Amino acid sequence: MSLTFTHETLPQRVVFASNQAVRHVAAEVARLGRRPLVIAAGAERHLAEPVLAALPDAAHHREVAMHVPVAVAERARAAAAEHDADVLVSVGGGSTTGLAKAVALTTGLPIVAVPTTYAGSEATDVWGLTENGRKTTGSDRRVLPRTVIYDAALTLSLPAELSVASGLNALAHCVDSMWAPRTDPVNQALALAGVRALSSGLPLVLGEPHGLEGREQALYGAYLAAVAFASAGSGLHHKICHVLGGMFNLPHAQTHAVVLPQVLALNAPAVPDRERQLAEAFGAETASGGLRRLRTRIDAPRALRDHGMRETDLPAAIDAILAVVPAGNPVPVTAARLDLLLRRAWAGEEPE
Amino acid sequence: MSLTFTHETLPQRVVFASNQAVRHVAAEVARLGRRPLVIAAGAERHLAEPVLAALPDAAHHREVAMHVPVAVAERARAAAAEHDADVLVSVGGGSTTGLAKAVALTTGLPIVAVPTTYAGSEATDVWGLTENGRKTTGSDRRVLPRTVIYDAALTLSLPAELSVASGLNALAHCVDSMWAPRTDPVNQALALAGVRALSSGLPLVLGEPHGLEGREQALYGAYLAAVAFASAGSGLHHKICHVLGGMFNLPHAQTHAVVLPQVLALNAPAVPDRERQLAEAFGAETASGGLRRLRTRIDAPRALRDHGMRETDLPAAIDAILAVVPAGNPVPVTAARLDLLLRRAWAGEEPE
Repeated sequence: MSLTFTHETLPQRVVFASNQAVRHVAAEVARLGRRPLVIAAGAERHLAEPVLAALPDAAHHREVAMHVPVAVAERARAAAAEHDADVLVSVGGGSTTGLAKAVALTTGLPIVAVPTTYAGSEATDVWGLTENGRKTTGSDRRVLPRTVIYDAALTLSLPAELSVASGLNALAHCVDSMWAPRTDPVNQALALAGVRALSSGLPLVLGEPHGLEGREQALYGAYLAAVAFASAGSGLHHKICHVLGGMFNLPHAQTHAVVLPQVLALNAPAVPDRERQLAEAFGAETASGGLRRLRTRIDAPRALRDHGMRETDLPAAIDAILAVVPAGNPVPVTAARLDLLLRRAWAGEEPE
Repeated sequence: MSLTFTHETLPQRVVFASNQAVRHVAAEVARLGRRPLVIAAGAERHLAEPVLAALPDAAHHREVAMHVPVAVAERARAAAAEHDADVLVSVGGGSTTGLAKAVALTTGLPIVAVPTTYAGSEATDVWGLTENGRKTTGSDRRVLPRTVIYDAALTLSLPAELSVASGLNALAHCVDSMWAPRTDPVNQALALAGVRALSSGLPLVLGEPHGLEGREQALYGAYLAAVAFASAGSGLHHKICHVLGGMFNLPHAQTHAVVLPQVLALNAPAVPDRERQLAEAFGAETASGGLRRLRTRIDAPRALRDHGMRETDLPAAIDAILAVVPAGNPVPVTAARLDLLLRRAWAGEEPE
């Protein structure tokens, strides 16, 4: 089979250093500008304060909201203008990074991102804004943070269960990247390294929530997941989860955890090379076996019916998913296959 | 052990498409400029002509020389100025790409690189110039080609033996990246993917020199090797080969082929995680076993004494290498260890 692909590598400096965020933020800000605007929500004040203390010329913008409402973005842009900011520093999760991106989108200011969760937005050039309940997204090179500073110590206050749920979401990004529409050998290599990091890190996070080792592996895995996903696009797994989440208001992380093994079992036999590489990354005989072992170790959610989905919801879900099956999925996705897949996910049965 | 690193990802578009270079060059040139200067040596005329035919406003610069002499670079810069070029297209091996980089270094013109060998220069921001027999090198973001177009059909005229020798050089870049001074998990992941591609591709190139499959894998592996090496820097293997090549004028590829298994056997036991990942990438029980099997399959050179080195050269080599051992090599490199390593490489004995 011929090797044909186009891969766009995006420029970014990644600094990975636990307990050293403050020092590295100061160095990066000094490289990029003189008057930083630090965006950090009130709830993350304890994480942002040491950073602010190291940046004497910084202003602090505290208003952050989920899904980046346009009005919130406009107030952040005004704060940047008022301060005459020449560099943005975000300290926080996906909403905080997202707000910095919204400011960069119109101002072109460079971003130094300091993530405190496994959301992954810091490693992509995707922005999102919400107005009147509608979300607009796009990708623009200007919103890609110039530098990301990963300090796993900043994630220690994220509860272990939430960390694992979020890590499973990142793991799903990695696995789904193996057959997503723009999958290529480069983003596959990064996705596989992400599987390796997450499958070794997540059990450690649960076992030693205050230890750094598992947190570092999980955070590194979340970075790779974001890079791979942004490059490869949304595969079947994410299309399914997106539909289920939107139609039935199912919880994000749990839906990912339940659906992933079903999609893996469906697709893997059609791409044996990638199945073998996934198996190696999980450190198991088979990819599905590796994922099963990991899910058992971290006591992952098993059934959609435990999370609010009713059996009578299944037919509508199947119709909606059939309409958005990604091009190039390794196996044809028929109504019958999808019915079987969703029934198992709903009931909590292992895939065949 | 704490995960601490800084990784700089360089921006580049990579298009991989056999038999489609002409179409993609035209598209990339249209994106980047209007008046291309095509740099392609006379010897590569047959490869460059279809490209030139697709670029009606192009000028063609034919003078290319090894190691990019300053005088040659200045004539190429003059050609670019005379043509009022706004984009450079290089079609050829490392010297051709290097000449385009020399022009970009002073003019800032974007490069579309079309490599016809496994040299790998197209994937790095490293430039080199030679004057009065002295080579100056540096790295500069402006010389990194904006787009690389890999068309494995253009490598079919590279003799199989030369391809394999060059591919072993690339393989050594990958293996050495696992412990080079700036090694990090990201460049390791890319290096491992390179090992995978090269170890599957090189035997195919030798077995079916006119088939595309092996050529594609080898070319893709050479790309990854260059990205990993540029990011991780020179490890012990490359320092040894550099000294041996410089002092005794040994042939490049053969030296790499003979020294690599010795360095792998020395370092791998000290980094068991990376050894295991290398083993997986070779598809073997151990990294050394995988490399041995590959070397047997492609009938790789076995002994430095077969390539012009004398036993009496060994002491001077040891002294010179000891002076350049890279920081952070996984095991301390003592004179005694180096003596044993070099004697085995000289005599063609397998490492322990």
